[in-house]
Amino acid sequence: MPLRMSTLFVRTLRDDPADAELPSHRLLVRAGYIRRAAPGIYSWLPLGYRVLRNIERVVRTEMDAIGAQEVHFPALLPREPYEASNRWTEYGDGIFRLKDRKDGDYLLGPTHEEMFTLLVKDLYSSYKDLPLSIYQIQTKYRDEARPRAGLLRGREFVMKDSYSFDVTDEAFLVSYQAHRDAYVRIFDRLGLRYVIVAAMSGAMGGSASEEFLAIADNGEDTYVRSPGGYAANVEAVRTPVPDPVPYDDAPAAHAEHTPDTPTIATLVDHLNEAFPRTDRPWRSADTLKNVLVVLRHPDGTTEPVAIGLPGDRDVDLKRLSAQVEPAEVEPFTDDDFTRHPDLAKGYIGPGVLGEKNTSGIRYLLDPRVVDGTRWVTGADVTGSHVIDLVAGRDFSGDGTIEAAEIRAGDPAPDGSGPLELARGIEMGHIFQLGRRFAEALSLQVLDENGRLVTVTMGSYGVGVSRAVAAIVENSHDEAGIIWPREVAPADVHLVVTGKDPVKDPEIFAESERITAELEACGVSVLLDDRVKVSPGVKFTDAELIGVPTIVVVGRGLTDGVVEVKDRRSGDRIQVSVANVVTHLVEVVGAAQQGDP
Amino acid sequence: MPLRMSTLFVRTLRDDPADAELPSHRLLVRAGYIRRAAPGIYSWLPLGYRVLRNIERVVRTEMDAIGAQEVHFPALLPREPYEASNRWTEYGDGIFRLKDRKDGDYLLGPTHEEMFTLLVKDLYSSYKDLPLSIYQIQTKYRDEARPRAGLLRGREFVMKDSYSFDVTDEAFLVSYQAHRDAYVRIFDRLGLRYVIVAAMSGAMGGSASEEFLAIADNGEDTYVRSPGGYAANVEAVRTPVPDPVPYDDAPAAHAEHTPDTPTIATLVDHLNEAFPRTDRPWRSADTLKNVLVVLRHPDGTTEPVAIGLPGDRDVDLKRLSAQVEPAEVEPFTDDDFTRHPDLAKGYIGPGVLGEKNTSGIRYLLDPRVVDGTRWVTGADVTGSHVIDLVAGRDFSGDGTIEAAEIRAGDPAPDGSGPLELARGIEMGHIFQLGRRFAEALSLQVLDENGRLVTVTMGSYGVGVSRAVAAIVENSHDEAGIIWPREVAPADVHLVVTGKDPVKDPEIFAESERITAELEACGVSVLLDDRVKVSPGVKFTDAELIGVPTIVVVGRGLTDGVVEVKDRRSGDRIQVSVANVVTHLVEVVGAAQQGDP
Repeated sequence: MPLRMSTLFVRTLRDDPADAELPSHRLLVRAGYIRRAAPGIYSWLPLGYRVLRNIERVVRTEMDAIGAQEVHFPALLPREPYEASNRWTEYGDGIFRLKDRKDGDYLLGPTHEEMFTLLVKDLYSSYKDLPLSIYQIQTKYRDEARPRAGLLRGREFVMKDSYSFDVTDEAFLVSYQAHRDAYVRIFDRLGLRYVIVAAMSGAMGGSASEEFLAIADNGEDTYVRSPGGYAANVEAVRTPVPDPVPYDDAPAAHAEHTPDTPTIATLVDHLNEAFPRTDRPWRSADTLKNVLVVLRHPDGTTEPVAIGLPGDRDVDLKRLSAQVEPAEVEPFTDDDFTRHPDLAKGYIGPGVLGEKNTSGIRYLLDPRVVDGTRWVTGADVTGSHVIDLVAGRDFSGDGTIEAAEIRAGDPAPDGSGPLELARGIEMGHIFQLGRRFAEALSLQVLDENGRLVTVTMGSYGVGVSRAVAAIVENSHDEAGIIWPREVAPADVHLVVTGKDPVKDPEIFAESERITAELEACGVSVLLDDRVKVSPGVKFTDAELIGVPTIVVVGRGLTDGVVEVKDRRSGDRIQVSVANVVTHLVEVVGAAQQGDP
Repeated sequence: MPLRMSTLFVRTLRDDPADAELPSHRLLVRAGYIRRAAPGIYSWLPLGYRVLRNIERVVRTEMDAIGAQEVHFPALLPREPYEASNRWTEYGDGIFRLKDRKDGDYLLGPTHEEMFTLLVKDLYSSYKDLPLSIYQIQTKYRDEARPRAGLLRGREFVMKDSYSFDVTDEAFLVSYQAHRDAYVRIFDRLGLRYVIVAAMSGAMGGSASEEFLAIADNGEDTYVRSPGGYAANVEAVRTPVPDPVPYDDAPAAHAEHTPDTPTIATLVDHLNEAFPRTDRPWRSADTLKNVLVVLRHPDGTTEPVAIGLPGDRDVDLKRLSAQVEPAEVEPFTDDDFTRHPDLAKGYIGPGVLGEKNTSGIRYLLDPRVVDGTRWVTGADVTGSHVIDLVAGRDFSGDGTIEAAEIRAGDPAPDGSGPLELARGIEMGHIFQLGRRFAEALSLQVLDENGRLVTVTMGSYGVGVSRAVAAIVENSHDEAGIIWPREVAPADVHLVVTGKDPVKDPEIFAESERITAELEACGVSVLLDDRVKVSPGVKFTDAELIGVPTIVVVGRGLTDGVVEVKDRRSGDRIQVSVANVVTHLVEVVGAAQQGDP
C-alpha cells in the first residue's frame, strides 16, 4: 500500500525548531520524522520509523551474513553483573539507575557486555562451541550530561551491539576482521561518507579498537589523518617522543624576577625584554606550563593532578578525559588553591609539584618533556620564574600523559607525515575487549586438552538511531533531506499537481494508476494526493522529505508525459506515461541490487 | 541461510527449570527460546527472538491493513503528561520511576495514552485530520508485585498498543470495530484458541471494553459464558438485581443469643438447632456476611470499607479490586479492630456499619441485598445475631458493589442462561477510552462549524511477548512445543541421522542438498547437522523445539525415501527424495497463503 500524504500522520514545518542547531536536527523535525518527547528523548513519526527500520534491516542483513546470531536482551538490568565488572560504579552519573518495589537495584542498560558474557557462560562450556558472534538491535540508555543535536547524542537511542567469543587471540582476530568487513558493507550501504580511525578503548577496558566516523563538520569527534594513511581519533593519537637531549653543557638553572607575568604571553614578552636570547627570541614553546585539574573518581573521591606541557599548547579536555576515564575532570578552584598554599598561582613550577614534593600533587608530563629539554617555568614564588630548568636533571614528573592538544601539522606517530584534523560522528566502534569481562564474570571453556581457559571477547557497536541523523548530516541541501535509496522512507515521491479529483480527474486517475502499478512491482510510493494543496507546497514538501526520486504528474499528461526528478542531482526528465513505470522500476532496481 | 544446530546459539535442557510451573515457561526455557535475566525479565535466544518477530510481523501486517500507522515512542518518559492525567499517582507501586542526573522525574512507560494524545495534539488541529489510528510495537514496563509464569506476567515485555482518534462517538465506533476485526484476524493467524469477552475498563477510565482471552487452564483471568452467548471477564459480570420483596408481613427483627458462632457454618448449625425454621432448614444464603477490608488509595491514604453479601458467597478479591481501582485492597488487621472498638469481631452487623452509624465505615452491599430481603446477621455484640433483619426497613448500605464471587450456574445478566466458568490469558484488550485523556491534555480540534470539540479515543493492546507463551500454552504436548506455522522459528526441521560426514557422506550430502533447495524456494530450514549426536537426541530436540514439519534423512535413502513427520498429528509419511522439496513447499505454502 502506498503512503498517502492525505492521511499520513505528518506535518511539515516551515520554521526551524528553536532548540535545533544542526541541519539533521532541524530537517528531521521540520520534515516530520521525529518529535522531541524530553531532552535527548525522541518519538518517531511514521516516516522516521520507516527510515529507522530500513537502517535496522541493513545492519541485520550484514550481521547475519557474517554468521552473527540475533538475540535480544532486556533494557532493565539487575545491578549484580555490573557490580562484578565494576561498571556499576565506573559509569558514575552516566547511567540511569532505579529501584523496584522490593528496593532491588536496577539500571537501564547502556551496553551489554556483562549480560552477553553471562549468557554465553550459561549455555556454553567447550572450545568446540566457539567461535560465536551474537548481536542485538536494542534500545539503550545513557544519562548524558548534555543531550544535544537531536538524535546524535540522545539519552534513549537504538544500537546494534554485538560480541564475539573466541578461545585464542588468533581466532579473535578473525572475528574482529569479519565484523570490520561487515561494518564497511553496512556504512557503504547506508551511503555514509566515513573514515576508519584508531580509537581509545575507553570504559570498555580493551587493548585496542577502531572507530567508524561519518565525516561531518558538525561532528563531536575530532580525528586526524596523515598523507601516509595514518588515521586516528584525536583522543587516540600518541605524541612521537623526541630523543633525549644531551645536557652536559647546560647552564645551571637560575630563578629570575619576572613580575606581572602570570600568563605565557606576558612571560614571553618579559623574557624577550629582560633576558633576550642571542640566537632567537623566546617563544611560548620554550616555557613549561603547569595546568592543575581535579579528578573525580567513580567512588566519589577527588584528586588534584598537575599536567606539565609546552607553553604553546593547551590541554585538550577530551584527550585528557579519555586518559583518565572512568574518572571525570573538574576545574581546580580557588578553594583548591586555598587548600594548597604552596601553589603560587600563575607561577607554579616543578619545585612543589609531584608526589614527592611539598604539594604531594601527582605531576604528569607531556611526552615532549624528555630528559635534557630546557624550560622556563614557575619558581613557585609570585613574580618569579626559573630559566634553564633541565628535565631529568632539575626535575621529573610522576609519569607522562597524552593531554596536550593535537594541531594540524603535528607529525603522525608512525612517521607518515604531518597530520590534518577533521571532524566526524562516531557511527561504529569495534573493540578488542580481551578478557576483562570474561575474567570478571568467570567465562571459561575447556580447551582441546581439557583445561579451563578464559574466553577472549570483542565488542562491536553501531549507532542505529544516530545513523538516521548522520545520514542527513552527510546528505542534505538547502531545500531538505536527500535520502540514500537504501534507507529512504519510500522509493518514489509522486506529486499529484491537480486541485482535486473533480476538477482534475485525469491527473488524479493517472497518479493512482501509476502508483498502483509501481507498488505491484515492489516500488514503494509516497503519494501526495492532498486536495486543495498547491503544487508549490507539494514540491516544497517533496524536497524537504527527501525521497530520492520525485515524479510530478500534471499538465504534461496532455502531451503524454510526466516529469521524473532526481532529488540529489536535481536533474529532471520527461518520461512518457506509457514508460514511466518501467523507467522507475529500473531507476529503483539498479540501486537495490546490493540488497540480498 | 538455514539455521544450523551445529552452530546455533541454543542448548536444550533435559530438566525443567526450578522456578517454572507452567508448561509454556518450562518448555520455552528447556527448548532454548528464552533465559531469565531477573524476576519477570527475560533474554531472548535466537529461536525465541525469531518467534517474537514473527508475531510482530503478523500484528504489524494486520494493523497496517486497517490503515493504522506505525510510530514509535520512547520507553523513558517524563512525569508531566502522567501528572496531567493523574496516572503518575494512580499507578502507585505498579510502575518503575526514576530520576535523571538533574533530579527530573521519569517513568518507564507501562502504556502510552498520554504520549499519543500529546503527539496528536502537537500535529493535528482539524476534524479533517481525523479519523486517525496510530500504533507502536514497543517494550513496556510494569513493576509487578508478583512477576510469574515466565513471559505471561513479566516486568519488561513487548506490546502493540494503538490508539484511535475521532471527532464523534459514531465515528469512534467504526474505528473500534476495525480494530476488533483486526484482532480477530491477528489471533486467528497466531493459531490461538480464544474468546472475546466483555471487560472492565480498569485504570484506563473508559466506559466499556472487550478482552481477547486465549483459552488456557493456566490463565490468570477467569471468564464466564452462557449458552445464549453472553461472555465476560469475571470482573465485568453484573449480578442480575432481583425485584424488591414485599415485607409488610415480615416479623420485627429480633436479636438472639448465638454463642460461639463467629463463622457462617457455626451460625447456620446453631440456627437450625436453636431456632429451626418450619419451612426448611436455615442455609448460609439466609445470612448476611459483613467483610471488612482496607482500601489504600494512590495518594497513600487508607480507608476501611465493609462489604455485606449473602453468607454463601465469598468476596472475590479480583472482582473487588477491579471495582475499587486505582485503590488497592489490603486486609483489615487486628490493629484496625483495635481502632474500631464498636466492631464485634465475628458478630459485625449493619447496626454499626455505614457512614451514618457509629463506626463511620463505608458499607457497600451485594446487589442481591434488595429491599425486603430478610437476613440473619451480626448484632454487633459478641455471641449475638439479629434474625429477620429486613433490608430497606431495618438497614441500608452506602451503595452496592460487585465483589461477590461468580459461581457456575449463576444466571447470566442478560438472561441468556446459566453461566459456566473457564480460565484464559488476556491477549488483547480493546478500550473505549472516551474523552478522559483528551480532556486531561486538552486535545481538541475544530469541527465543521469552526467550534473546538474534544476528541474521543480508543486504546487497543496486544501482548506480543505474552503471545509467545500463550501460544505454547495452547499448543504443546508432553514432548514439547508445537508451533503454529505462522510463528514457528523455521518451516522445516531437518534431522540428519548420520554420525558425521565421513562415516555417512550420503546422508549429510543429501541433507545439505535438500536444505539448500528448500531455502531457495523460500522454505526456512532448521538443519540438525550436529556430528556425533545420536538420532535419539536429535529427535527429542526436534519434538521439544516444535517446528511444525520434521524431515528425517537417514537410512531410508537407500530406498530413495526420507520421512516427513507432522509435529502436531504425529503422522509420518515416506516421501521419495526426488519429490521431497516439492512436497514440503506445498505443505508449507498451503499454510502461508493467508500471509500477504
